[in-house]
Amino acid sequence: MNGADNLLDTLIAGGVEVCFANPGTSEMQLVSAIGNRDGMRAILCLFEGVASGAADGYARMTDTPALTLLHLGSGFANSMANQHNAMRAHVPLINLVGDHATWHQQYDAPLTSDVAAHAAIPSDWVRVSESPDDLAQAGAEAIQAAQTGAGGIATVIVPANHAWEDAKVAAEPLPVPRRTRVPEASIARAAAVLKSARTPALFLGGRALREPGLDAAGRIARATGARLLCETFSARLQRGVGRVAVERLPYFAEEALQALAGLDRIVFIGARPPVSFFAYPGKPSWLTPEDCETLELATVDEDVEQALLDLADALSAHEPANVVAPAPEPEVETPAATQHGPLTPLALGQSLSALLPENAIVTDEAATCGMALYPLTTQAAAHDWLSLTGGAIGIGLPLALGASVACPERKVVALQADGSAMYTVQALWTMAREQTDVTVVIMNNRSYAILNIELARVGAGTPTPKTLSMLDLSRPDIDWVEIARGMGVPATRATTPAEFHEQFEAAVARPGPALIDAVVTQELPG
Amino acid sequence: MNGADNLLDTLIAGGVEVCFANPGTSEMQLVSAIGNRDGMRAILCLFEGVASGAADGYARMTDTPALTLLHLGSGFANSMANQHNAMRAHVPLINLVGDHATWHQQYDAPLTSDVAAHAAIPSDWVRVSESPDDLAQAGAEAIQAAQTGAGGIATVIVPANHAWEDAKVAAEPLPVPRRTRVPEASIARAAAVLKSARTPALFLGGRALREPGLDAAGRIARATGARLLCETFSARLQRGVGRVAVERLPYFAEEALQALAGLDRIVFIGARPPVSFFAYPGKPSWLTPEDCETLELATVDEDVEQALLDLADALSAHEPANVVAPAPEPEVETPAATQHGPLTPLALGQSLSALLPENAIVTDEAATCGMALYPLTTQAAAHDWLSLTGGAIGIGLPLALGASVACPERKVVALQADGSAMYTVQALWTMAREQTDVTVVIMNNRSYAILNIELARVGAGTPTPKTLSMLDLSRPDIDWVEIARGMGVPATRATTPAEFHEQFEAAVARPGPALIDAVVTQELPG
Repeated sequence: MNGADNLLDTLIAGGVEVCFANPGTSEMQLVSAIGNRDGMRAILCLFEGVASGAADGYARMTDTPALTLLHLGSGFANSMANQHNAMRAHVPLINLVGDHATWHQQYDAPLTSDVAAHAAIPSDWVRVSESPDDLAQAGAEAIQAAQTGAGGIATVIVPANHAWEDAKVAAEPLPVPRRTRVPEASIARAAAVLKSARTPALFLGGRALREPGLDAAGRIARATGARLLCETFSARLQRGVGRVAVERLPYFAEEALQALAGLDRIVFIGARPPVSFFAYPGKPSWLTPEDCETLELATVDEDVEQALLDLADALSAHEPANVVAPAPEPEVETPAATQHGPLTPLALGQSLSALLPENAIVTDEAATCGMALYPLTTQAAAHDWLSLTGGAIGIGLPLALGASVACPERKVVALQADGSAMYTVQALWTMAREQTDVTVVIMNNRSYAILNIELARVGAGTPTPKTLSMLDLSRPDIDWVEIARGMGVPATRATTPAEFHEQFEAAVARPGPALIDAVVTQELPG
Repeated sequence: MNGADNLLDTLIAGGVEVCFANPGTSEMQLVSAIGNRDGMRAILCLFEGVASGAADGYARMTDTPALTLLHLGSGFANSMANQHNAMRAHVPLINLVGDHATWHQQYDAPLTSDVAAHAAIPSDWVRVSESPDDLAQAGAEAIQAAQTGAGGIATVIVPANHAWEDAKVAAEPLPVPRRTRVPEASIARAAAVLKSARTPALFLGGRALREPGLDAAGRIARATGARLLCETFSARLQRGVGRVAVERLPYFAEEALQALAGLDRIVFIGARPPVSFFAYPGKPSWLTPEDCETLELATVDEDVEQALLDLADALSAHEPANVVAPAPEPEVETPAATQHGPLTPLALGQSLSALLPENAIVTDEAATCGMALYPLTTQAAAHDWLSLTGGAIGIGLPLALGASVACPERKVVALQADGSAMYTVQALWTMAREQTDVTVVIMNNRSYAILNIELARVGAGTPTPKTLSMLDLSRPDIDWVEIARGMGVPATRATTPAEFHEQFEAAVARPGPALIDAVVTQELPG
């Protein structure tokens, strides 16, 4: 047995089952150790940002960490944007990053860089293995670190020789600490705040957005008249027919201010007071009304579901929620199916809402289109909605891949802006290889549409054609059907509501990956 | 005028002419300032690693910096792998990275990260703007920093409000320091070392590999009997018919050791003593023979061309080099053109050698295939050969893009491994948009072939099918013709030497981008 063998045995014994890998020479013993074991599924990704985004998607659906396997500092760098998103999603994730053999590092060979400096940026916990025997211990600690609180990024840096040199034994698993229960006094205080309020709200985030938490929140809302709000970009929100409906805070600061206006008390559970995504000249960053009293009852790392249950009990809120999304009125024919005009986000949303399979997982990196699709799917069949938590684009396709690996029995629908899809387009190939059950819908508006809006909002003056050329994805138009087929994913193009409806219906009816290039005509908001 | 306007005026006055951009909301005023000016060409890249790799390629061909325009820490992270390569290529490069407005940073909005920590990793110089008026001054300093020594990465971090707030004037240009001339005594010492040697060598790197330096090195070789060697991965090597031929140090350590065996004196000019790329169990990292005397005459940042001229003078080495690559024997018919067997690297190299246009620029990220193609093109028409300097894959297509923007009158040929091409495949779209004159040859061997070799070399045992699945790019095979067309680049597939010969001949005869999916059959070395 060498260090790599013991590390893998430790990780497998600790419940880690999947590795999203893009290895290089310095990781060959880790590759070999994975290849020699049944307990770890190996999924090759053709870019590291796919691996980290997929590990995030996997963790959002299982609450357990997947591995990434990355090649030195530059391999980690390629994964970093989606590590940032994972960090903001508060998910458990374990990175194994190879480095040069310890004695080789002094020579500053071409690929040498400061791996620990890379890892420190998005990681909650970083550990450099100190010896072949220490490597398994580092793995055991990583499992613990990744599952502390809501979850965090644990990175183990593996000098190549620690993987290949002889080592004694795997490490003993370490206890995973329970999430902190919010003290009774805090619960009582929150109950008092809600009772004394004229216009209260609960502002929910993290695991408060799963069914048990939402159910309790719905009962609290009924008992106190509190509005239920949630963060704009949540890691995982359970919604759709039969679920307690929550108002999602709008993205644009002006609309968010409006949504919060008039509230006199807000209790935050699993979320922090919201701020605007970007700063704008002369506009406030802080969105909570000045005269509103706020209480942060439970951080995202505490036991937010229990906090909601305890708060409901403290308020004797036993009546079931009355803000449950109802099933839509049955219609003889879905309107979208008969339309032959331009494919608007509205038409697309109508089809999605009608056709979304029960218990689907929706990944939303649809940017401007996504803002339109979210309210349109309030009455879709029950589903999980996964957002871009950290704002670093390029997560949608990897997230869908990882969610599908986690939940092979559920349909994943990836709502995907074209510009963001291009960032980690390599994910399509892994979807094809693993035959993941993902329907990708490219919202092809041929621009970074959000930036056309933001250009005006930041007061950057009247744009010249040259200015607009930097925000525009035409010349040439991207042919997503060809790109998808080039990576082994069957694909079709829809340019009318009727075409989209038919193609989406067919795609979700069939297992395996599929892509629809939805050429949307969009009137931009804002 | 605002800070962004003054910054752009400063950069344009300082000779910066091209910006490879992937902006976001926090860079909208910079986008607008570029859009409002004639002196800065704006080239949109659909992933930040394309922007940084293109800026590297541009700098290798012009010795002047291009700009990248990047979006906060995560945008910089996406560019980092190719920043690492640029750092190892010692090229001038200026990054403009937007950050949140200064007052917004305290709120830890979703995209907030430590931009300076990202920038510090590959940059030679980092500066955070301190005010709207300071921004232009930071730009002037960046131009100077990027052009000090051989060249370096200068990163300016731009809080959004410094770009949009009023500012007074552009900054005065700062002097670019001359590269240090190696002192006469050092030259004399090197001359003495070469004269006293039995088996001397010059080991060249950096700008020693341009024609003037090579010419002097060739004369020194003739006068002293020194062998001429160069670093394995050089930023830019001028070679081909009529040029002084240099032996490239082999990649694999065993072969490199053999290449250096028997030398008793090595003078390093623009390069450091070579080390193995990776460590291997039981093998040395240091490649210079133990009993060989070494002298580092000029670092890459000093005036290496002048050092070679001075050394030639000190040795009275006035006779022209006799190690010039001769023109190939004329043949009635090129052998490759008549072959209908499998497309091997040998056949491919023969066609390349025969058909490479005069004064072409070759970018080499062909990995295992590239090792075969390099010696086969020794007698090709004079050309520049650009290598992967830092080992972080995903540079080839961006490098070709940037080199073509720098030299629109020259044909660029991108020799590109399939695995590496996938990393920054988005570069194809920008090639199509800018109609760059690049012929891309995908060496499609459907695997990370180099890793199959390295697996054995690091002693990782007999691979299982699962192990090999992590190194293999089949299931599904990638269809590069469809991917290229999807991004607007005309493409064909070659599976025999005759097909490749005909397609390559046609592609280089026509201006504009083209891609050949060369399905190669390869016997692996090592």
